Amino acid sequence: MNSKMFEEKKSSREIFKGEILGLYFDRVKLPDGKTAYREKVTHPGAVAIVPVSNDGKVILVRQYRYPVEEITIEIPAGKIDRNEDPEDCAKRELAEEIGAVNVKLTHLSSFYTTPGFCNEILHLFIATDFKKTGNNPEEDEFLEVIETSLGEALSLIENGEIKDAKTIIGILMARDYINGKSNKN
Amino acid sequence: MNSKMFEEKKSSREIFKGEILGLYFDRVKLPDGKTAYREKVTHPGAVAIVPVSNDGKVILVRQYRYPVEEITIEIPAGKIDRNEDPEDCAKRELAEEIGAVNVKLTHLSSFYTTPGFCNEILHLFIATDFKKTGNNPEEDEFLEVIETSLGEALSLIENGEIKDAKTIIGILMARDYINGKSNKN
Repeated sequence: MNSKMFEEKKSSREIFKGEILGLYFDRVKLPDGKTAYREKVTHPGAVAIVPVSNDGKVILVRQYRYPVEEITIEIPAGKIDRNEDPEDCAKRELAEEIGAVNVKLTHLSSFYTTPGFCNEILHLFIATDFKKTGNNPEEDEFLEVIETSLGEALSLIENGEIKDAKTIIGILMARDYINGKSNKN
Repeated sequence: MNSKMFEEKKSSREIFKGEILGLYFDRVKLPDGKTAYREKVTHPGAVAIVPVSNDGKVILVRQYRYPVEEITIEIPAGKIDRNEDPEDCAKRELAEEIGAVNVKLTHLSSFYTTPGFCNEILHLFIATDFKKTGNNPEEDEFLEVIETSLGEALSLIENGEIKDAKTIIGILMARDYINGKSNKN
């Protein structure tokens, strides 16, 4: 660790410990010895998956997101349960949200969503070669499944209808993955 | 608003109101009439900027991020001050973090970083045609400025050394922006 940058924790106060989030107010020692305070959110981590069907459709979900008071268009995603493997979590979310089973998962990236204030890490996969069961998505998820072409999904990013960070990364990386595969053929 | 998805706020409890973050624990009515609880973080919004110098270098910053306990590689970014215009905020951050002035800003995208639990919106720009002053970055920012080619920046994403969501989106969109411009020439 570069000592020119490191911030040493001097004390930590737990403000909130919820079902999903925690909030901490910490006092730190800066590299120059001065004191600063950090507001930090803890999160269990999450997965997100770009499902690309055998006929080349990207499967997205529309759902109401309470914190932003909007219906958003996103790739399937969900929080990691305690001790759950990210791949198992991805398979569970795909079955629950879009009824996809027997998926082939390929890891695209793992990244911090907001490292300035939260420790959430998100594992991103592309899902291919899956079967869709006839089952509707989980009744208590209140979401709508939509299918688009990759080109349409890229247009939804460009015109601002898709405005979720993980979904933007997922679709841009899926494009590179698919183009890379077709270039190799 | 699609009433099939809407969640109605029934009550809201302020848990924390800090310098930057707020935390709320809300009771909502689900579309089926049932009750659920939402843990919601509020954030003032932010900007991030991909600075591309006249000789084609992408300028990045290394800094310690306390919530993830790591030094990260990111594009310049910062929170929006109260009533501040996002473009003004972008110019301020560029001057503070990398000493760039007289920048030309082009808006790339605005997106939610984590709409599942936080209302943060991030405005992303590409900065070109700027001058670098000899000034060092703000002394109390404790960051290191690095310059890479666009190809190197893309490699840093691929090998996982860049693992910040806004930086991944910024570099992937800057690539498309630069390729689009050169295709038009």
